Amino acid sequence: MIDTPYLLFLGDAPDPLAAKVAQGIRDWRPEHCVGQLRMDGCKADLKLPDMTPAEAAAAGARTMVIGVANRGGVISPAWKEVLVEALEAGLDLASGLHKLLRDEPDLVTAAERTGRGLHDVRVPSEAYPIANGRKRSGKRVLAIGTDCSVGKMYTALAMEREMRARGMKATFRATGQTGILITGSGVPLDAVVADFMAGSIEHLTPDNAPDHWDVVEGQGSLFHASFSGVTLALIHGSQPDALILCHEPTRSHMRGLPDYQLPSLASLSETGLHLARVVNPAVRVVGISVNTAGLGEDEARAYLARLEKENGMPAVDPYRHGAAALVDALE
Amino acid sequence: MIDTPYLLFLGDAPDPLAAKVAQGIRDWRPEHCVGQLRMDGCKADLKLPDMTPAEAAAAGARTMVIGVANRGGVISPAWKEVLVEALEAGLDLASGLHKLLRDEPDLVTAAERTGRGLHDVRVPSEAYPIANGRKRSGKRVLAIGTDCSVGKMYTALAMEREMRARGMKATFRATGQTGILITGSGVPLDAVVADFMAGSIEHLTPDNAPDHWDVVEGQGSLFHASFSGVTLALIHGSQPDALILCHEPTRSHMRGLPDYQLPSLASLSETGLHLARVVNPAVRVVGISVNTAGLGEDEARAYLARLEKENGMPAVDPYRHGAAALVDALE
Repeated sequence: MIDTPYLLFLGDAPDPLAAKVAQGIRDWRPEHCVGQLRMDGCKADLKLPDMTPAEAAAAGARTMVIGVANRGGVISPAWKEVLVEALEAGLDLASGLHKLLRDEPDLVTAAERTGRGLHDVRVPSEAYPIANGRKRSGKRVLAIGTDCSVGKMYTALAMEREMRARGMKATFRATGQTGILITGSGVPLDAVVADFMAGSIEHLTPDNAPDHWDVVEGQGSLFHASFSGVTLALIHGSQPDALILCHEPTRSHMRGLPDYQLPSLASLSETGLHLARVVNPAVRVVGISVNTAGLGEDEARAYLARLEKENGMPAVDPYRHGAAALVDALE
Repeated sequence: MIDTPYLLFLGDAPDPLAAKVAQGIRDWRPEHCVGQLRMDGCKADLKLPDMTPAEAAAAGARTMVIGVANRGGVISPAWKEVLVEALEAGLDLASGLHKLLRDEPDLVTAAERTGRGLHDVRVPSEAYPIANGRKRSGKRVLAIGTDCSVGKMYTALAMEREMRARGMKATFRATGQTGILITGSGVPLDAVVADFMAGSIEHLTPDNAPDHWDVVEGQGSLFHASFSGVTLALIHGSQPDALILCHEPTRSHMRGLPDYQLPSLASLSETGLHLARVVNPAVRVVGISVNTAGLGEDEARAYLARLEKENGMPAVDPYRHGAAALVDALE
């Protein structure tokens, strides 16, 4: 569990995309964001107050989150001075980078000296059990995709926001590094040891009130040769009552796999349902979520209308048009 | 890679079943077995010459394999003296136990002093790549099961033996601890980090001669809520040309999951084919392998005959009746 609120560290981000982790936190948990810290030359700006670590600490921040990524996911030497400054100002550090804070001797020394914490969300922080498959109380909805990186996290976060706005009981359950930084907790599923994948997701989505929904962040795709096993563990561990199909319509092949075509939404639906029924025979596909960023507004509307007609269920871009229709379908 | 041949350590096995790892090595790689070492009270006997480590080393042994398991998978204090004696006699040690040889300070010290190796096959010994899904040369056959522990490893080993006896090019590819100890190498898939599961299997089954078969050991089951993700990674990583369906007909529920029924062979076939076609559209289900240990001879024959008729493909117990019909179906 990472203490909030945050100071978002944008470092020397060469463009806004490099700060997309910080952008995600800003978009989905603005109440957790006290300010931003930009170094000289930073080309990202989240329109938050610029603060030093000491100013952020005085304003109530508890953790400085590294919200910027660079090639190789390393902790840039150029950042070190301000990372140590944050620890000395009384802030913990949190990072989802591939290279770990805990492997940087100078940061470890500074954290020990100041009594602060280093949170590396790239790797699991606890031992998970082997899944037991026992039926749990409460409800769960899971986003599954025709491919990786088609908007599963944003879909889940948008649904959680809409559900809470309606007074429904809903909790976004993060299964990836960015999601964990956004919410402050979760399971970094891609870094969990194979035998414990499904168990980690059972642990993440425990018994709950009968009318409570866990909105579970999807990972990978059943049709992605590199990561399909992670996806199936997520389906069987989360015991979904409802599935949302996620898609990106302009992609010419599976991400990172030039020889692989994306499956149809019908194929994804059929396969996902078939496998999810192993753990919950009552599971249903309730809606389609499309990342239409690559389409114009008219084109997006027409595309979504066609999908609705073809599939007999709501099809929306939750980031562009809101998740109301998906939540209607859940209710 | 573990050096062969072996001295098989049976320790203080309370019954033959406790030495089933050693039994597997004895059954499938008798040419790797120089002798056995039994401590006082050992109730297992593989009918190999009883040897001290020094005698085994003199007879050519290179490694002493811990072929006995106990509750908790710990390295018993009672074994320590003879484990150190083996290192001093010039043998490496190999273990598939949950507790690692490398975590025992006295063994580490003795290994360093003697210049011998400690092989813990429970955990990966190398860094695996992320799967790339690229089509590889050579052929691959994979055993998939209606449940865990239904005879997938024995099926693969029996097929490899039959294929080699016919002069076919065939290599058993181990994906579990016992399989690794039997062959001396492989991938301990259940201990691989999620992101690298499929990649580890691509690494295990590389490009090969067009007429060479990798006979890949299956793991888990697509229908087992705890381990299904491991199974799907294995299907997508191994890029199978042929699938063998494995089943145990007397089981009343999925292993370790009292609330879960086993799927039908037809359902396993359909699901396995559907998912395997993602990586190889030409994949076929070629045969059924049944562990009939729980059935009498007449009952087993009748059951297998009925399966053959119902499914239109060979159905055999390869341990009981040989794998010839499965290999015929491959050819």
